Amino acid sequence: MARIFVTGAAGFIGSTLVDRLLSEGQEVVGYDNFSTGREEFVQKALACPGYSLVRADVLDPFALTQAMRGASEVWHLSANADVRFGLSHPRKDLEQNTLATSNVLEAMRHNGIRDIFFSSTGSVYGEATVFPTPEEAPFPVQTSLYAASKLAGEALISSYCQGYGFRGLVFRFVSMLGERYSHGHVFDFVRHLLKEPGRLPVLGDGGQRKSYLYVGDCVEAMLLARKNMSEGFDVYNLGTDGYCTVMDSIGWITGLMGLCPRLEFSGGQRGWVGDNPFIFLATGKIRALGWDNALSIRQGVERTVGWLLDSRWVMGEG
Amino acid sequence: MARIFVTGAAGFIGSTLVDRLLSEGQEVVGYDNFSTGREEFVQKALACPGYSLVRADVLDPFALTQAMRGASEVWHLSANADVRFGLSHPRKDLEQNTLATSNVLEAMRHNGIRDIFFSSTGSVYGEATVFPTPEEAPFPVQTSLYAASKLAGEALISSYCQGYGFRGLVFRFVSMLGERYSHGHVFDFVRHLLKEPGRLPVLGDGGQRKSYLYVGDCVEAMLLARKNMSEGFDVYNLGTDGYCTVMDSIGWITGLMGLCPRLEFSGGQRGWVGDNPFIFLATGKIRALGWDNALSIRQGVERTVGWLLDSRWVMGEG
Repeated sequence: MARIFVTGAAGFIGSTLVDRLLSEGQEVVGYDNFSTGREEFVQKALACPGYSLVRADVLDPFALTQAMRGASEVWHLSANADVRFGLSHPRKDLEQNTLATSNVLEAMRHNGIRDIFFSSTGSVYGEATVFPTPEEAPFPVQTSLYAASKLAGEALISSYCQGYGFRGLVFRFVSMLGERYSHGHVFDFVRHLLKEPGRLPVLGDGGQRKSYLYVGDCVEAMLLARKNMSEGFDVYNLGTDGYCTVMDSIGWITGLMGLCPRLEFSGGQRGWVGDNPFIFLATGKIRALGWDNALSIRQGVERTVGWLLDSRWVMGEG
Repeated sequence: MARIFVTGAAGFIGSTLVDRLLSEGQEVVGYDNFSTGREEFVQKALACPGYSLVRADVLDPFALTQAMRGASEVWHLSANADVRFGLSHPRKDLEQNTLATSNVLEAMRHNGIRDIFFSSTGSVYGEATVFPTPEEAPFPVQTSLYAASKLAGEALISSYCQGYGFRGLVFRFVSMLGERYSHGHVFDFVRHLLKEPGRLPVLGDGGQRKSYLYVGDCVEAMLLARKNMSEGFDVYNLGTDGYCTVMDSIGWITGLMGLCPRLEFSGGQRGWVGDNPFIFLATGKIRALGWDNALSIRQGVERTVGWLLDSRWVMGEG
């Protein structure tokens, strides 16, 4: 019987994956320190008999090793996902992404578990020169501490596959949207417009192109890749075949909210230092397995706005 | 006045660089914990008035930050270079290469130093698919914990260049040879033959192709790249335009030593799990600056053997 261990189980993507696995009748152990995870996101899972939740930190190797006992595979989805403020605390990405991944791998090794699934990011391609960017793009130069720490996590996983016979799948994500989405552009825009419907500050010039994927489509893609897993290490880009500009998403958001705010641009091509002006991933590899996104980018944005408007507690300051 | 800070200053490459800088009249601060560095390698430098040596660990952020005070640039050459036994202690590369590099960068940031030079490795290309392998080769899959930890170091440096205005040069090395060389194939072969001249155990099938560079040529290449440095981050492969097989080097070594041992092959294409069967780097980028290697691979091997035979203390078990 499979017993699936999920780090970041109270997070946006982790909790969505957990609910999906439980709906199949799988046994799941969630692990989260609730630093950014939300109690509300685990309520549904906690009602399932096949679920158990451990409240602990991936930086605690003892708790992690113990909690993982008896698991058959590990989905390592916990991360510091606060890309934008990486420069304010340069050790945070290193600790919460790179060291944490090393801890997860060591805990697996000590428990005899060898299958790992890892959420990485399309920002590991740095300033990509090829669009859409394929998995085997030219050797990238990292432009953020976040991407650097995720690349280091990927590299650890592939080394464990080579050295210890692990099997690993790495998923490089575009930005995710959907129910339980709780940080990023769309979140910031909706929250601001609820407070101040007449104006909207926009980082950069609004021309930044963004590719989004609906979280439900992401989970289906990951489970399909797992079903087709072979020995060793592999990488899949996960995204949609298109992109939008920040201006597009502002139009969809304000349209749904029935608002017509004055837009105030901070200017420049980037939202912040290290912000990637454009992440647009080639997804032919995952599509070759038969996957397709059910929701378009626009549908993903609109569904997210609808959920945020129904879930205003997630935007509270507390 | 430049004051050049060098980590790994008692190591093979670090001590060679230090002597070269001191010969130009530069002021140099060496930093080493002597875990693998050798007292013998710093004797010449210690006789120079422009040299000071700090005996401390890069994993001690306090000592590191203090020692770096007043430096104008940092050469971060300390590393766990024990590639082969990475799997026996999987945290060692992470700590001594990745975390140490983070410490160096943080110590620089706190001291207002922004120029960093870093010794990386051609093994970050993993199982390369293009030979000779250029700096912009396809996105690699890491096959050793050592390479993974060096790639993570590179990624941290490029992120600091992007985020904090650092300037960074990364050098991806082939295997180095020359005076003070104290681990690797040639070392193992010479040491074994001195003990037991009649037989030589060879890991793998002897057909593994290896590219070597003479350490003096390496130091000249790095200093030339530094002279041509511009803003931001850049990467140079450092190697020769050719390669040899393990069998070639055995022939040169036994020829010089006047021996004809029976060769005993362990078999297989690799020396060990994670050993790269072939690292052969494209060096057009550094050559475009006007650099060329003075010594061929064969000359490098022979000079190394000569030095080892004159320096048998370095092969002692102690």
